[in-house]
Amino acid sequence: MAQTTQTERTRTVDQIMDNYRSDEPGVRANLYRMLNFGRLAGTGKLVILPVDQGFEHGPARSFAANPAGYDPEYHVQLALDSGCNAYAAPYGSIQTIAHDYAGKIPLILKINNHDTLCDEVDPAPAQTSSVQDALRLGCAAVGFTIYPGSSHWKSMYEQLRGLSEEARAHGLAVVVWSYPRGSTLSKEGETGMDVVAYAAQIAAQLGAHIIKVKLPTDHLEQDAAKKVYQAEQIPIATLADRVKHIMQSTFAGKRIVVFSGGGKKGEDSIFDEARAIRDGGGNGSIIGRNSFQRPRADAIKFLQKVMDIYAGKVV
Amino acid sequence: MAQTTQTERTRTVDQIMDNYRSDEPGVRANLYRMLNFGRLAGTGKLVILPVDQGFEHGPARSFAANPAGYDPEYHVQLALDSGCNAYAAPYGSIQTIAHDYAGKIPLILKINNHDTLCDEVDPAPAQTSSVQDALRLGCAAVGFTIYPGSSHWKSMYEQLRGLSEEARAHGLAVVVWSYPRGSTLSKEGETGMDVVAYAAQIAAQLGAHIIKVKLPTDHLEQDAAKKVYQAEQIPIATLADRVKHIMQSTFAGKRIVVFSGGGKKGEDSIFDEARAIRDGGGNGSIIGRNSFQRPRADAIKFLQKVMDIYAGKVV
Amino acid sequence: MAQTTQTERTRTVDQIMDNYRSDEPGVRANLYRMLNFGRLAGTGKLVILPVDQGFEHGPARSFAANPAGYDPEYHVQLALDSGCNAYAAPYGSIQTIAHDYAGKIPLILKINNHDTLCDEVDPAPAQTSSVQDALRLGCAAVGFTIYPGSSHWKSMYEQLRGLSEEARAHGLAVVVWSYPRGSTLSKEGETGMDVVAYAAQIAAQLGAHIIKVKLPTDHLEQDAAKKVYQAEQIPIATLADRVKHIMQSTFAGKRIVVFSGGGKKGEDSIFDEARAIRDGGGNGSIIGRNSFQRPRADAIKFLQKVMDIYAGKVV
Amino acid sequence: MAQTTQTERTRTVDQIMDNYRSDEPGVRANLYRMLNFGRLAGTGKLVILPVDQGFEHGPARSFAANPAGYDPEYHVQLALDSGCNAYAAPYGSIQTIAHDYAGKIPLILKINNHDTLCDEVDPAPAQTSSVQDALRLGCAAVGFTIYPGSSHWKSMYEQLRGLSEEARAHGLAVVVWSYPRGSTLSKEGETGMDVVAYAAQIAAQLGAHIIKVKLPTDHLEQDAAKKVYQAEQIPIATLADRVKHIMQSTFAGKRIVVFSGGGKKGEDSIFDEARAIRDGGGNGSIIGRNSFQRPRADAIKFLQKVMDIYAGKVV
Amino acid sequence: MAQTTQTERTRTVDQIMDNYRSDEPGVRANLYRMLNFGRLAGTGKLVILPVDQGFEHGPARSFAANPAGYDPEYHVQLALDSGCNAYAAPYGSIQTIAHDYAGKIPLILKINNHDTLCDEVDPAPAQTSSVQDALRLGCAAVGFTIYPGSSHWKSMYEQLRGLSEEARAHGLAVVVWSYPRGSTLSKEGETGMDVVAYAAQIAAQLGAHIIKVKLPTDHLEQDAAKKVYQAEQIPIATLADRVKHIMQSTFAGKRIVVFSGGGKKGEDSIFDEARAIRDGGGNGSIIGRNSFQRPRADAIKFLQKVMDIYAGKVV
Repeated sequence: MAQTTQTERTRTVDQIMDNYRSDEPGVRANLYRMLNFGRLAGTGKLVILPVDQGFEHGPARSFAANPAGYDPEYHVQLALDSGCNAYAAPYGSIQTIAHDYAGKIPLILKINNHDTLCDEVDPAPAQTSSVQDALRLGCAAVGFTIYPGSSHWKSMYEQLRGLSEEARAHGLAVVVWSYPRGSTLSKEGETGMDVVAYAAQIAAQLGAHIIKVKLPTDHLEQDAAKKVYQAEQIPIATLADRVKHIMQSTFAGKRIVVFSGGGKKGEDSIFDEARAIRDGGGNGSIIGRNSFQRPRADAIKFLQKVMDIYAGKVV
Repeated sequence: MAQTTQTERTRTVDQIMDNYRSDEPGVRANLYRMLNFGRLAGTGKLVILPVDQGFEHGPARSFAANPAGYDPEYHVQLALDSGCNAYAAPYGSIQTIAHDYAGKIPLILKINNHDTLCDEVDPAPAQTSSVQDALRLGCAAVGFTIYPGSSHWKSMYEQLRGLSEEARAHGLAVVVWSYPRGSTLSKEGETGMDVVAYAAQIAAQLGAHIIKVKLPTDHLEQDAAKKVYQAEQIPIATLADRVKHIMQSTFAGKRIVVFSGGGKKGEDSIFDEARAIRDGGGNGSIIGRNSFQRPRADAIKFLQKVMDIYAGKVV
Repeated sequence: MAQTTQTERTRTVDQIMDNYRSDEPGVRANLYRMLNFGRLAGTGKLVILPVDQGFEHGPARSFAANPAGYDPEYHVQLALDSGCNAYAAPYGSIQTIAHDYAGKIPLILKINNHDTLCDEVDPAPAQTSSVQDALRLGCAAVGFTIYPGSSHWKSMYEQLRGLSEEARAHGLAVVVWSYPRGSTLSKEGETGMDVVAYAAQIAAQLGAHIIKVKLPTDHLEQDAAKKVYQAEQIPIATLADRVKHIMQSTFAGKRIVVFSGGGKKGEDSIFDEARAIRDGGGNGSIIGRNSFQRPRADAIKFLQKVMDIYAGKVV
Repeated sequence: MAQTTQTERTRTVDQIMDNYRSDEPGVRANLYRMLNFGRLAGTGKLVILPVDQGFEHGPARSFAANPAGYDPEYHVQLALDSGCNAYAAPYGSIQTIAHDYAGKIPLILKINNHDTLCDEVDPAPAQTSSVQDALRLGCAAVGFTIYPGSSHWKSMYEQLRGLSEEARAHGLAVVVWSYPRGSTLSKEGETGMDVVAYAAQIAAQLGAHIIKVKLPTDHLEQDAAKKVYQAEQIPIATLADRVKHIMQSTFAGKRIVVFSGGGKKGEDSIFDEARAIRDGGGNGSIIGRNSFQRPRADAIKFLQKVMDIYAGKVV
Repeated sequence: MAQTTQTERTRTVDQIMDNYRSDEPGVRANLYRMLNFGRLAGTGKLVILPVDQGFEHGPARSFAANPAGYDPEYHVQLALDSGCNAYAAPYGSIQTIAHDYAGKIPLILKINNHDTLCDEVDPAPAQTSSVQDALRLGCAAVGFTIYPGSSHWKSMYEQLRGLSEEARAHGLAVVVWSYPRGSTLSKEGETGMDVVAYAAQIAAQLGAHIIKVKLPTDHLEQDAAKKVYQAEQIPIATLADRVKHIMQSTFAGKRIVVFSGGGKKGEDSIFDEARAIRDGGGNGSIIGRNSFQRPRADAIKFLQKVMDIYAGKVV
């Protein structure tokens, strides 16, 4: 695939940003910042390094495989060196590095979190930092997780709503992790095609500027939805099909959607996933454990290959 | 039925607006805007296009039948082209189109929503946007759903109360979707005559400027009410009778009431419903799935026929 | 009984108002307004027309017997024409008529309500309007229902407390409907002498300027109370005795107490009740269904006879 | 015991007030007011008349024995005439008399209350008035009940915390009624030595300026505490011992503690209690039912004898 | 071990403070104050005297062994005389001594507390004072307990978040007691290596400037974590190993961590613990019962020996 010129790249980003034309200039500026930063700058594609696993899974489970990662500075430097578009982490991690890195790479403050010491069937994260914190620390965006399907959905959506309004009013972009979970969903339902598409739609309706979902399988969870997928013969056989359907489900592609890699796995399967995301029209990946649990040199090489797939520099 | 002159039309709207004479000028202006917009301008009748099904039922169930509808712009353009009085949708959808459409057609921001990933017997929607959002996005009104009969009725009414006060103080009209649901009601009770009339009265007492209810059946749900309907021989045999009783139950016709079409069905049954609404003195319809799940050309033709029934241009 | 002179009447009201001498001048002004308005002006007696049954019991159950009552204007006009001291109703009803009637008759905005679509054993009303609404609509007072004995008593008392403080600070009087209900009370306990006297005391302690309770029976509900009533031989045999005990229980008669008529019944039994209230030293009645469910001419005649009993014009 | 000179009395109060030297001058002024008022002025001892039984137990149970007590004015006049240091009551009672008595005797507004129409095993009072009310009504202090041991302990302590901060910032003293109750305590545990000492400590830590507890028995409720009382041989055999231990448990006597008399009983047993409180170093009594349920002349004589015991004028 | 020069000591503290370079100057000033105060000034080590046991366990259980401790002044004077870096206590205790000791020794206001009269399996402390209180009383920091693993984790983290933001904005440091407890943890799990490391990480992510955890055992509680500890062969055999892993888990040593001594035990075992904390790179101890339950002279000697171990003056 031929490389793109600067003008083409600007056009690509402008086209995406045109879908956000009701947004405040401050929010737009921060979206531009992320889209125009790093190795994928100007391509309309994003690879973001998120490191909230210390909070979500505990420190040893997250960092023992590569102990350099116990230090938050390791991650933001990795994001910078590999050419990620942004680095996302909870308050403590961002606070530790903001003095030095704010302004060097777009920072996303993950303002709610959940730990697994008390792991509920119907989860709801705790708000662990604030829009004011994000502003003081020089961040470009706030990140928020919702668990559609949890019996606590109402309080999560309402908390997100309030924080989003405050973020937007202060020029911060809003990134929503939309992860279906809860007692009414089966385990495979959490990544079922219908459920993930629905979760993506909800995030879009709640005003997310960037939506993060898991890559869906071809499982169909809800009967009423299953009937429609079958009757209308919506193509969901390949991963690229499914990514395409997610993009469709987020205002016909008018929202930026990135996909998560999940637990650590082989490089090749992630490269395959990146190709499917690219081919389905997705905007990129959020890659955590698969980055920071490798040795640094490997991680950079690995991340850059993913980026090159998105950029069309490699097949 | 003869067509009406401009003076007659003005008089019709003034007569309706006279029932809102305690309201703030800003609210009155927005009610005037909706009553004087579109193909039914000046008739005192309203057809509103509501598109919250992506949130309420999921994207595929809502839009796969007519994939153009995945894009929020499709709907507002459909509302405009068919001559609807207003377009109603949740935050994400309105945010996507407000930059271009605010000022071209009255927008109603639906500020609470409910999804069906976790579908409770006693539902309560989440607040998903705010009065401030509606103002920033140039809307004419906010929309809010209550579920009378749900065990969460108190928190819903109180949330509506607070938002209504804020909306009115900022000159926005308040549209209330009043849908009885909950563990104490039977399935047919949700559309029973007594229950829907009660739900309409509650919306009126809570200060709704425009009330939306489902078309009631002749089922009578509550014993204490049934006795009165029978003793007083309240006519509820025909749909027009029932619409008339709803209008009576909303301050003897002093509130604007529109009726919802429900799931997709044959055109003729909707035309029949429109005739009954018109003959019973109702103010019109909110028609969602029956509009946007048809191909665009059909939808426009279909919506305009409904409008012509209301306008008295066709029988 | 001889008619009273103007000076005597002024003295009567001043004497009552002397019990409110810690209150703000604005609150006192509104209490004066109610005591000096209508056919009972200056007598220290009150007959108030309350119409919240549309919300509390549903529209047909309330208004089908006399369909003129579907229109809120019917009621305020009835209150005015019959010479009531004030008219009380929920937000929607007051909003509909305030433009024309504020200033013509004292209005009481009933700021919480309960419907019977979801009718709990331990009820708690929803706040449906605000002090700010009452001010904007030109009301003289706000009304609030508490259900002592309900497991939700704490949240109701606290909501009343906050609203009362706000109301008083803005010069509005506070009328409290104190209706014992809840899982720990028997059905007849709800109107038991000890329970109603206790509910009246609670309303007084919570700062009610006007207290509304149901007429008590001679049933004694709580063992600890029963012992005292028997040991101290508190007279409760006649209705007048019981009214007297209620007055005693509200600061030895230093608070205005009016009694509710309950469901529709024969005129004579209501006249008897009025005589007992008068003879027991009560301040009057709140009469809803027994007024508006009669034809208008009958209702006016009926209400005026009740007033004349209070005024001592008839026996 | 010889009578004290004015200089000695001033020294006594100054010594107590020295323990409150971190407090705001406004708070100190109000503590001085109570300590320097009435028959016990300047002795460092307090007898306070509290009348919240109308709310807590109902009007007849409280006042039928001496019906003059239905009138709130009776009580404040009794407090004044008998020489009490202060009068404490809920909002309604204080509101009724504040116009005339504020400034004549220190008033304590009891800002939370509990009734027994719905009497829970794990109680939590309702806030029934506010710091702003206390200021407007000219009170010297606010009173607040907590029930340590109730499953609602957290919400009570947090409500007290907020109100205390507000009270202190406005120069009002804070009186805490600390009454252990709840499903984890046995009936006798509520007045057990370990439990009452713990409740007194909690009130002190929460910032109470004056602490009110019940007189403890020698029962020991909690195993972990029992072991320590036995191992360390803490003297708790006599009532004076137990009072002494309570004083120790409230910062080694650095907080004012008064003890409640409980239900009506013989005069002599109350005089004995007063002697024990005095001998154990306690600051006095809160005496409600034992005062106002006697005829006025008896009550004054009775209260003054209690005061004289505290003042050391009688043995 | 040779004694350090003043320059070396300044360098040590500066090095620690360099990890807090995103923090407000006011917060940094208060951290400097604690690090540069007392016998361990300038060593980067801290021994803090915390006395909240009167609230947490009751007065007799805490102070009967050494009754001088009933008086809050005893403790702050002990902290001062023994050379502690700071003194931590709940509101009442700090309020009693702040007038005299604020400015003489850094004070930490413990703003939430839990008692054991109602001791839940899933605990949540009550907020008992405020940031405003800490400012008024001249404190250097606020202290807050969280119980990771409790079903109330979300509300605790969110309360801490709000208070931390307020504290930081006013220049106060935040000390977090992170004590795993709750129905999903076994008793030994509460001090298990994986669980304590996780709790320390959570406190760090929530923005604690100083973290307090219990010394962990080599127990591994959670299966998913156990696998990693074993697979990665994380050394946890000795106490020093485990302290080292805690330091690793708090941003690779970029947060100050102090360890608690727990219940009273032999001096030697505490000296051994101090050595392990020192050798594992920990920052010191919070020692309560083991200090104040000894006679004063012993306590000072004992505390100074602990400090000398940290300072490297003794082995």
